[in-house]
Amino acid sequence: MQTLWLEEGSLRLRQDIPLPVPGLDEALIKVRLAGICATDLEMVRGYYPFKGILGHEFVGEVVQAPGHTNWIGQRVVGEINITCGQCHNCKSGRRTHCEQRTTLGIRDRNGAFAEYLTLPVENLHSVPASISDEAAVFTEPLAAALEISQQIHIHPGDHVLVVGAGRLGQIIAQTLTLTGCQLNVVVRHALHQKLLAEQGITTIIEEEVAARQWDIVVEATGSPSGFDLARRALRPRGTLVLKSTYKGNMEVNFSSLVVDEICLVGSRCGPFPPALNLLQRGLVQPARLISERFPFARAQSAFERAAQPGVLKVLLQFQNDPV
Amino acid sequence: MQTLWLEEGSLRLRQDIPLPVPGLDEALIKVRLAGICATDLEMVRGYYPFKGILGHEFVGEVVQAPGHTNWIGQRVVGEINITCGQCHNCKSGRRTHCEQRTTLGIRDRNGAFAEYLTLPVENLHSVPASISDEAAVFTEPLAAALEISQQIHIHPGDHVLVVGAGRLGQIIAQTLTLTGCQLNVVVRHALHQKLLAEQGITTIIEEEVAARQWDIVVEATGSPSGFDLARRALRPRGTLVLKSTYKGNMEVNFSSLVVDEICLVGSRCGPFPPALNLLQRGLVQPARLISERFPFARAQSAFERAAQPGVLKVLLQFQNDPV
Repeated sequence: MQTLWLEEGSLRLRQDIPLPVPGLDEALIKVRLAGICATDLEMVRGYYPFKGILGHEFVGEVVQAPGHTNWIGQRVVGEINITCGQCHNCKSGRRTHCEQRTTLGIRDRNGAFAEYLTLPVENLHSVPASISDEAAVFTEPLAAALEISQQIHIHPGDHVLVVGAGRLGQIIAQTLTLTGCQLNVVVRHALHQKLLAEQGITTIIEEEVAARQWDIVVEATGSPSGFDLARRALRPRGTLVLKSTYKGNMEVNFSSLVVDEICLVGSRCGPFPPALNLLQRGLVQPARLISERFPFARAQSAFERAAQPGVLKVLLQFQNDPV
Repeated sequence: MQTLWLEEGSLRLRQDIPLPVPGLDEALIKVRLAGICATDLEMVRGYYPFKGILGHEFVGEVVQAPGHTNWIGQRVVGEINITCGQCHNCKSGRRTHCEQRTTLGIRDRNGAFAEYLTLPVENLHSVPASISDEAAVFTEPLAAALEISQQIHIHPGDHVLVVGAGRLGQIIAQTLTLTGCQLNVVVRHALHQKLLAEQGITTIIEEEVAARQWDIVVEATGSPSGFDLARRALRPRGTLVLKSTYKGNMEVNFSSLVVDEICLVGSRCGPFPPALNLLQRGLVQPARLISERFPFARAQSAFERAAQPGVLKVLLQFQNDPV
């Protein structure tokens, strides 16, 4: 089948990868649409050692599901962590932190930039007919955005700042504005500003950010520089949510975190059902973030496009031939 | 009056400092006993720029209180942050984070290593007669320990690790054990181990600390090395409480905080009334942490002693002459 293969920092199309065979309680899924996210770009830069098929944002159709034939033909999205169900984290309700996990297109498991992928049926969520492929492909990053409210209490009276108005920052802003909080998003690109303004979300440029005023700051720039601004903006006893993953370390003054009694919260994968709820009800509209879509044969060009400044979501489209 | 003066990294006894004059709504307090803490040692190392009289842990007696004569003769401890009452933080219930604050012996205000100090009467707490001077002098660090439970919810079922069994680590352990949680304290010195064991608190050496198992880890070593151990010990989605302040930055892998969804919480000054409650009821026994007491004339020797490895609380004692 056609795949986009990452090996030692270089991406290439490979046709010689055999169709994967679903294991016990797994489904074979034909990918309809897949999205490129910042983590994929960081993976190419070597953020995490990985050899194989990249990609973890997708919508597809179940074509095989041995022992679970009710899934066949369903349009699905899928949770990306494949877990053991047996370890302390799994049994404590922290399945996304399973110590034995593999992660679709990120850790020890081939991903979604391919004609087909496999996932355990327990990872699948059926996509309601009213949600388009173009919206459904955002379920995974939307769930990651919702993880913020899953972890911390955002009060309607809070002053919240999102630093970074790119792929993830835009989606986070769309979810946070639903709390009624006083939301501002730091923007650098006119297009990002326009997209947020169209949704009634207030934007601000870096120079306008008042120091030490914000109750909650979400760092979603995807780069170390975002942290300094986020830290400066936060009030004493405020909460700084970290959403970016990138290669390398950060240098931080820990004593100042102690003196200001700052709370830093790392935030990763989130819950799919509320993401599908919000999509179905039209309360978030991620499809407007699509910058461009490429046929799969041009996946490398799609990656180059996705890496350009200001570009939002780039999608890879597959032809929907039957198996 | 006699004072211990810090200037450009060197400490010296000065007799030429005039008796301070209490301002509006302030009291003049004759210091009976004062304690040296890790922050004082860090201040000498230049953690925070300060010129003046060091010291913020004390018990004393009110000798003047213009307009508040009911305080005269009372034995008191005092909250160390002197606040404006007008700024956003003060009005939002975060007085210890007042943006205009001065801090006793730390920031823009002479401290407790002197025969006399002044504080606003609103900072004072009367010490019940059943609490000895030797216990009362620990009210401030005990309040700082209680700030942890003020900030985060420690469940009785949590597995909690305290890294560092020095001055503050010991007091923190004494408070955390009252929650009923599964508490372990990482020790390096036999004396520290013995003190904890005598109170039924389980100790552990660094090599025995299981990785990624602890729900809550408190870093109280006072040095950057403690963070790495604390981080390794913490489970995914666990909470790491930072209690140490020291000069310089730390290098941290932020992506790993995101992937493991770690919560870092800086923790500083805490509430005095519950500290006095616990002291009065004998539920914490900090006086057993006293390593040595020095007459004030030997304050410099006291600092040298306090800086030695394994030494716990060193006190400075004043003669109780009338004014």
